[in-house]
Amino acid sequence: MKEWMKQVPPDEVKNYDKAGFMSEAKIGERTALIVIDVTYGFTGSEGLTMDEAIAEFRPACGPIAWETMPRIARLINMFRELGRPVVFTRGHPYNVLFAGKATKSTRSMKQPPKFNEFPPQIMPREDEFILEKTRASVFFQTPMASYLVQNQIDTVIVCGVSTSGCVRASVVDCFSHGFNTIVVDDCCFDRSNYAHCANLFDMHAKYANVVSLDELEPLMLGKQMQKAG
Amino acid sequence: MKEWMKQVPPDEVKNYDKAGFMSEAKIGERTALIVIDVTYGFTGSEGLTMDEAIAEFRPACGPIAWETMPRIARLINMFRELGRPVVFTRGHPYNVLFAGKATKSTRSMKQPPKFNEFPPQIMPREDEFILEKTRASVFFQTPMASYLVQNQIDTVIVCGVSTSGCVRASVVDCFSHGFNTIVVDDCCFDRSNYAHCANLFDMHAKYANVVSLDELEPLMLGKQMQKAG
Amino acid sequence: MKEWMKQVPPDEVKNYDKAGFMSEAKIGERTALIVIDVTYGFTGSEGLTMDEAIAEFRPACGPIAWETMPRIARLINMFRELGRPVVFTRGHPYNVLFAGKATKSTRSMKQPPKFNEFPPQIMPREDEFILEKTRASVFFQTPMASYLVQNQIDTVIVCGVSTSGCVRASVVDCFSHGFNTIVVDDCCFDRSNYAHCANLFDMHAKYANVVSLDELEPLMLGKQMQKAG
Amino acid sequence: MKEWMKQVPPDEVKNYDKAGFMSEAKIGERTALIVIDVTYGFTGSEGLTMDEAIAEFRPACGPIAWETMPRIARLINMFRELGRPVVFTRGHPYNVLFAGKATKSTRSMKQPPKFNEFPPQIMPREDEFILEKTRASVFFQTPMASYLVQNQIDTVIVCGVSTSGCVRASVVDCFSHGFNTIVVDDCCFDRSNYAHCANLFDMHAKYANVVSLDELEPLMLGKQMQKAG
Repeated sequence: MKEWMKQVPPDEVKNYDKAGFMSEAKIGERTALIVIDVTYGFTGSEGLTMDEAIAEFRPACGPIAWETMPRIARLINMFRELGRPVVFTRGHPYNVLFAGKATKSTRSMKQPPKFNEFPPQIMPREDEFILEKTRASVFFQTPMASYLVQNQIDTVIVCGVSTSGCVRASVVDCFSHGFNTIVVDDCCFDRSNYAHCANLFDMHAKYANVVSLDELEPLMLGKQMQKAG
Repeated sequence: MKEWMKQVPPDEVKNYDKAGFMSEAKIGERTALIVIDVTYGFTGSEGLTMDEAIAEFRPACGPIAWETMPRIARLINMFRELGRPVVFTRGHPYNVLFAGKATKSTRSMKQPPKFNEFPPQIMPREDEFILEKTRASVFFQTPMASYLVQNQIDTVIVCGVSTSGCVRASVVDCFSHGFNTIVVDDCCFDRSNYAHCANLFDMHAKYANVVSLDELEPLMLGKQMQKAG
Repeated sequence: MKEWMKQVPPDEVKNYDKAGFMSEAKIGERTALIVIDVTYGFTGSEGLTMDEAIAEFRPACGPIAWETMPRIARLINMFRELGRPVVFTRGHPYNVLFAGKATKSTRSMKQPPKFNEFPPQIMPREDEFILEKTRASVFFQTPMASYLVQNQIDTVIVCGVSTSGCVRASVVDCFSHGFNTIVVDDCCFDRSNYAHCANLFDMHAKYANVVSLDELEPLMLGKQMQKAG
Repeated sequence: MKEWMKQVPPDEVKNYDKAGFMSEAKIGERTALIVIDVTYGFTGSEGLTMDEAIAEFRPACGPIAWETMPRIARLINMFRELGRPVVFTRGHPYNVLFAGKATKSTRSMKQPPKFNEFPPQIMPREDEFILEKTRASVFFQTPMASYLVQNQIDTVIVCGVSTSGCVRASVVDCFSHGFNTIVVDDCCFDRSNYAHCANLFDMHAKYANVVSLDELEPLMLGKQMQKAG
């Protein structure tokens, strides 16, 4: 059983099953990867405790971020090798002043530059796109949907931070826009493990397929072989 | 302490506090109430057990729906007495065939007419609006935002079903559109109490103020007296 | 030279050419047809003069509507024979009360039922979709984009009424969403021939390829043969 | 009679009147000004002929831009003196590579930096916002609507370039979102006078009130005095 299912009362899971939730979705031919907000503002510098990370950047997730990072790097690398597009997102520091920020938290709207920088492990390449946003969802008032339409993407794979915030909001929108949506559970992280698990459960029940990196790899490579064969 | 906070590990709550989440928002001058999807499809007929309700309509929430209903009716009534607008939402049976449905569940897209009917306790009046939608969020590809703009609404109060599905998705969008957003916890319900609590926590931390009906009433009436005085 | 080009001063056309407008676009593999607002409200009953048509329904276009209708029917038929989807749009009489209407005209928001009915010549079939809208653009706050994404449409062909109103607004949005967009000039009509020509010119210069029905047919059939061959 | 009406056949204008178009709209209490795309890319350097301007930047409008500029500066100044917000827009050079550009023209997506710079006459102040966009409409996939909602703006005044492109597309969206919309005709410009006139006519007929700067000033100052009085 998935780790994030253990927190859910078994009786309630049964009701989801009866109601027809939790169904399997298929991976399509034309995939894209979205790496959500994996910048220092949401990780904190490497090696800090949780308290130190929050002291550096209030929304930082600390140790769990750095534990997850190598798997995100592996996921990004798989897309690069398959020649499939990778889009990185982060906050838009200027537009945030214009339109407000992703959450109602009291943290300042002005952040030091490092807040929006990417750690070297998952640094975008020159030819990869960095999409800046003002709200939780990477689709809300950004050109994301038009990019996916123009590239005739049918399946979006999602990873990043936080599971209960920007990842969840983006996944709901991705599904709503009509894209087949897959969340990689062990490539997402959150400041609360409770919220991480609860949101993976919700997303899997209603909007996406939630799989691990180990589960995703053969699916993606299978697609590739199918195309090559 | 709020009921829905008890499920969250105290250490994790502390991290939210340090990070600046969970802040208070203010209620504005021009409020509107959105009652999300309180139709038989999400309640089931009155008096059924959970199993019987799911057998009638797969997404039905059963007994908790009928326990919550009188409070929703009281909330609606408060808005009517204050002369503030109430919008009711439900699925759009025809557009669902066109554009797909709110979740990836395996349940049929064709539903019997009763699925989309409102129970008498919360029946919209002739002069109140019923907005039909195809996705979880009441804002997604519907005229909701234009209605709120045209009526210069600054604060949206949200109730209905399910807390973890259509309510959550709508609240994220409502906040993202720039409206001050308030969720009435004991006027929302869900087939899973676990998901109900987890999503109230997320919404309160990030996008909205989550209050009880008893807490909302003096706030709303205070506004009214202020205007009258 | 296209009829609608003759109205444009030749010097100004030269400037468009120098600036790189008026380029050719390609028709894609997966087409859909959108038939915009061809209901009695925008045609008037058959056989009326312009004045009589306006007296029946204020936004009616009169004789030009009925002159264009057989070509629209031929265009619809081509899509049906190729097995490609056809979407019909019209005003949403109920949502118009909620969210306002497509233009700022003083005409009433309550219309008799015939206003939103389709003439027999272009009547949608049982299995074709009728999308209802409140604004000029068929994309604005409707599930149109999600439908096109889900069906992985890459090219949208547009016809209907009015060229300078709902057709123009829809074409701008269609292009903005990332779809290859084609307008069939002699399958569009308008109450003003001046505005009809001016808007075909604008759309061709900036957002779409404007072609006649005779020009479109071999392109569509070529695609089809390509797929069949 | 307005200059841009003279181009419209009088019979056709009569039909618009009968149909209820061309109605007057009211200016609201809370206005904002949007200055659309007045950068060197759409003006060319000062003092160039039309041909020289196009040679510098393909979409440049040349002399008419510089003739209009002082009036745009006067309009901006009026908003500054009244303490009302001014938003400047321009293309987003990076996102254009991601999501494509505002028109289907063959001009390059990579532009030299000067393309997106503002002439000194209308330079935004430190505390004014510059919103970057990828499509014709300033609302399409940008935070514009959320900004207006958050600031409870009820009336948007629009000026800039080109009348038939980004101004027209933005005005249709502005009206569709539910904002009262006013276009200042002699503060808009276009590479084609024909298209400039045709689009002012369309906008006035359907989506906005088109007024001159001289007509707008007393309306705006009247509002101000009303508030102050």
